[in-house]
Amino acid sequence: MGTRAVEQKDSRRDAVLDRLKWRYAAKAYDKSKKVSAEDLEILEEAMLLAPSGFGLQPYKVFVIEDPEIREKLKPAAYNQPPITDASHVLVFAYKKTVTDSDIDIFVERHVEVRGQTRESLAGLETAVKAAMRNSVESGQIETWSSRQPYIALGFLLETAAMLGIDATPMEGFDPEKVNEVLGLTDHSAVVIAALGYRDHENDWLAKLPKVRKPKSDLIEHI
Amino acid sequence: MGTRAVEQKDSRRDAVLDRLKWRYAAKAYDKSKKVSAEDLEILEEAMLLAPSGFGLQPYKVFVIEDPEIREKLKPAAYNQPPITDASHVLVFAYKKTVTDSDIDIFVERHVEVRGQTRESLAGLETAVKAAMRNSVESGQIETWSSRQPYIALGFLLETAAMLGIDATPMEGFDPEKVNEVLGLTDHSAVVIAALGYRDHENDWLAKLPKVRKPKSDLIEHI
Repeated sequence: MGTRAVEQKDSRRDAVLDRLKWRYAAKAYDKSKKVSAEDLEILEEAMLLAPSGFGLQPYKVFVIEDPEIREKLKPAAYNQPPITDASHVLVFAYKKTVTDSDIDIFVERHVEVRGQTRESLAGLETAVKAAMRNSVESGQIETWSSRQPYIALGFLLETAAMLGIDATPMEGFDPEKVNEVLGLTDHSAVVIAALGYRDHENDWLAKLPKVRKPKSDLIEHI
Repeated sequence: MGTRAVEQKDSRRDAVLDRLKWRYAAKAYDKSKKVSAEDLEILEEAMLLAPSGFGLQPYKVFVIEDPEIREKLKPAAYNQPPITDASHVLVFAYKKTVTDSDIDIFVERHVEVRGQTRESLAGLETAVKAAMRNSVESGQIETWSSRQPYIALGFLLETAAMLGIDATPMEGFDPEKVNEVLGLTDHSAVVIAALGYRDHENDWLAKLPKVRKPKSDLIEHI
């Protein structure tokens, strides 16, 4: 590797951790600053690229700008200011069940994207249908399905940090009320992320150091 | 913003999506290539920086290099080659319950890192203890807790991609067997990620395009 390549690699490496240290869950947003359409497009693409179990992507992401809907969501989220003050509010909602018909669409998508024949995908189809049926029958489908959008949330938060965009992940809300506001029936809201730009002066959390476990409490080498 | 700053921003933006498109769940690893201690340090730091509900980080990450342990894990993971062939295997295990004592440690960590007094944190302590007790009593604690490491998994996968390191997220394993091999009692394995460098020639998946839902099926604008 040439000197230039090594330097680029080092700078990329430093950049990632610098950005992740910069990010925090903003509590106050600058209402005057909007995330650009171009940046939003990149964040959406990053979520789309996030992996998921079997690649099923058993969730939807609602990207909400509408001020009236956000006013309705706010009480469902214990009046947390980012719901109305951030540039955008993203609601991640997992699919409450996964049916054979979902798997058919999934397999057809493989045919479309990869040019494979449906017959050549019979093994995949059978395996995924069996796994999902088993998950439904054992009552584990929602547990499994509701974990998947958290990978996309991770991609959203890290990508936002890379672009210098603030974000606030939030689990403090009443899912039933959020589902009602958004008219969700097949899906259920599980986590929300506000996006925008921090109001550094008015955010009590902006000035405090990040609290994390000592590394040796989180990570064990074997 | 000057021209140079704009160019840097554009290049960072392109870099992120380029890296996320480059990544995929490697099925075959080059056994001769190891992730460097320096890179592993960065990946661990990224996971440590990942947010979690209340900041509780209710999970552990086991970073496994030991070949004997990996041989024992392999049958528990339906003999998937990355378990033994990748450079490292990371097992994410969520905490099966969260007790008042965990919250005490969490609050003490705030005292340590932020220099706050325990008294000033009484509101936080009461709120988090109440939320966790409620989660335990309603039988939701494992559902909630097991979602949290998926954010760290997202940070791991995106950071690995930024560094040009391959990774394979895997849910296809028997958690009880993995728990047994690792001697886990308070925690339960929920997702595994192998890390290393793809064996491009011998990986059937390396040559196939990524299959994702059409963007409009995943993301809805409101």
